[in-house]
Amino acid sequence: MPQAAQYKIALCQLPVTADKHGNIARARARIEAAAAAGAELVVLPEIWSCPYAMQTMRSYAEDIDGGRSPSVSMLSEVAAARKITIVGGSIPEMVPASGQLFNTCCVVGPDGEIKAKHRKLHLFGIDIPRDITFRESDTFTAGQEPTVVDTDVGRIGIGICHDIRFPELAMLYRSRGAHLICYPSAFNMSTGQLLWDLMQKSRAVDNQLFVATCSPARDPNSQSDFVVWGNSSLIGPFGEVLAAAGHEDATVIGEIDLSLIEAVRESLPLETQGRGDLYRLIDVQREHSS
Amino acid sequence: MPQAAQYKIALCQLPVTADKHGNIARARARIEAAAAAGAELVVLPEIWSCPYAMQTMRSYAEDIDGGRSPSVSMLSEVAAARKITIVGGSIPEMVPASGQLFNTCCVVGPDGEIKAKHRKLHLFGIDIPRDITFRESDTFTAGQEPTVVDTDVGRIGIGICHDIRFPELAMLYRSRGAHLICYPSAFNMSTGQLLWDLMQKSRAVDNQLFVATCSPARDPNSQSDFVVWGNSSLIGPFGEVLAAAGHEDATVIGEIDLSLIEAVRESLPLETQGRGDLYRLIDVQREHSS
Repeated sequence: MPQAAQYKIALCQLPVTADKHGNIARARARIEAAAAAGAELVVLPEIWSCPYAMQTMRSYAEDIDGGRSPSVSMLSEVAAARKITIVGGSIPEMVPASGQLFNTCCVVGPDGEIKAKHRKLHLFGIDIPRDITFRESDTFTAGQEPTVVDTDVGRIGIGICHDIRFPELAMLYRSRGAHLICYPSAFNMSTGQLLWDLMQKSRAVDNQLFVATCSPARDPNSQSDFVVWGNSSLIGPFGEVLAAAGHEDATVIGEIDLSLIEAVRESLPLETQGRGDLYRLIDVQREHSS
Repeated sequence: MPQAAQYKIALCQLPVTADKHGNIARARARIEAAAAAGAELVVLPEIWSCPYAMQTMRSYAEDIDGGRSPSVSMLSEVAAARKITIVGGSIPEMVPASGQLFNTCCVVGPDGEIKAKHRKLHLFGIDIPRDITFRESDTFTAGQEPTVVDTDVGRIGIGICHDIRFPELAMLYRSRGAHLICYPSAFNMSTGQLLWDLMQKSRAVDNQLFVATCSPARDPNSQSDFVVWGNSSLIGPFGEVLAAAGHEDATVIGEIDLSLIEAVRESLPLETQGRGDLYRLIDVQREHSS
């Protein structure tokens, strides 16, 4: 697998409206601008094609496997035209045969092909009286597979939003050799303030790899069910912030230097210091397939 | 196991000198003051009886199992006199039969008895050229057992300093029913700035329990091998800072309200949202004993 030692990653913190075609056109323009600025990898937010509103989610859903997905078609076209890799945030995916709705991230390569499809594994549910109540599982079905994908810029693990709350998934991605975990996300204002910064840094630091998050831009007047936190960021393997947006409409470009991973793991060899005689994380699907 | 719904915990951020008797006398005074202020649980720092200096560590070591430990005798006396529980930071423990040196934390109950003895599991080693190089394993032997102990204030997991860097240990303590993890620690200035705050908050938030850290006070003129970060803290199950010291000689008192754990786990039920079908942490010793 060819890997650039260094490359630029762009996080497109897109505004999202109720106009899907407008959202797609805007995303296309932002991806093209990021590629023009030298980004070889572009990341989009969770649910960027439509508002994060459960009532209307199904009406915006697209049939990715059936090839009837204007959002993913756009990603393929731009990726091929610009010769870049895109971690395509997520869109609501409809599977006509079952009627199931998934929250799905497509990873597209410079040939325009879909390299991987991650369906959100951990559906968000929260119930804090007088603050926020929200249950994704009323609308979405959870995915069944962790996603690690080999791309032109190296091996990447994919998680969507609430997937970041589970340290086991990041540990599993590290053990499968990912150098970067991308989390398209849409944290709300409550969990954003408490957890956004903490989660991305701790996943990076515990696994000594890069973490990229990409949120929609904050818009208190949006038609989503909640206001998003924003603050898309690129975190290095020692927990350092390499690039970060505020809460506004913005594209942030950061640099990933893969040699940093080696440097950190050599200076602080957590893997050899760990106690496999006391605890061990089982990667269930790998265990079963071996 | 009787559990107070709420109780006060004291973190004694002690200065440490080369005078062991002075260190013991000071610790005794601070524990007594904390008990007088209502603390039912008192936590001391990592290596509080002597400087954190590898050259002299062995000369300060005590034979705990042989009953020749002035440091632990003091803890027993104060705990019994004040009817409190003490997580006794750590001291260098010598095992005469083998000549092994451990970095050991004794937990003492209100009857003055040692309830548990935790020997640091993960020995710190770091090598950052032109910044810091340090290897504990040249001096210490690593412990062999995770430590969860039932006390008068509930079930507590124990880790020492670098033990906090391994998310698996905290996860294992949560699965064994701990409501609080105490990490007597002595982070240096480099890792302190980068990781101290992050580690304690993420262990609390990922496991939805309380985390208490206790460091020695910072002293640039100490005879230790490095300057410590300080900043002893009590973190709640949502990552909130409930009490925190600066870097000075201080005792910080915070309140642990066990009902907060239930509240957080009900509002955000991470345990049921996790994907045991995809990953699973094995508690090796439990697995073998079952």
